[in-house]
Amino acid sequence: MIVETLKPPYFAVIFSTLVTDNLKCYQETAERMEALAKQQNGFLGIESARSTIGITVSYWQNEADIITWKNNIEHTEARNLGREKWYKQYQLRICKVEREYGFKK
Amino acid sequence: MIVETLKPPYFAVIFSTLVTDNLKCYQETAERMEALAKQQNGFLGIESARSTIGITVSYWQNEADIITWKNNIEHTEARNLGREKWYKQYQLRICKVEREYGFKK
Repeated sequence: MIVETLKPPYFAVIFSTLVTDNLKCYQETAERMEALAKQQNGFLGIESARSTIGITVSYWQNEADIITWKNNIEHTEARNLGREKWYKQYQLRICKVEREYGFKK
Repeated sequence: MIVETLKPPYFAVIFSTLVTDNLKCYQETAERMEALAKQQNGFLGIESARSTIGITVSYWQNEADIITWKNNIEHTEARNLGREKWYKQYQLRICKVEREYGFKK
């Protein structure tokens, strides 16, 4: 779901992916990574959507939290599997969120 | 498609949406807005995906380019229609991209 208004400044990791046809264990691993990310210090929220490409945006309090999550052993193993099997291409961008606006009916 | 490596710092607008059932003219307008965005100064690229929620990330050279695009008349009209008809909820985040990594097989 949409992550509602947070308090800038905080950080966003935009992960844009193009997957291969070999998606064995991909879904389970993606769900496990999301559950694990939620347990990390500084985690603020996550949004995901997939059409031709997938976009997952995770939100974090500090850049240090992002680096700690990057270095998490289980996450590192999943990333290695991802590069080996699931991803044809990806781009990962680390951003500082400066302002935001929300709308809700 | 995935926007390949750009040169930080630049800016990202993360637009996360939840749509209503009243999507008349939504697709045409979204396509027109994408075409129009591409003609704007400072536009660097756009990525989109939709599942339960939609995520569109557009990339821009400067914050001033984002504000000029925000104030574009046709864009403003589309935004008003969006709030009136198409969007149940959205969140728009303006971010400074600080670092990025790419992977391609």
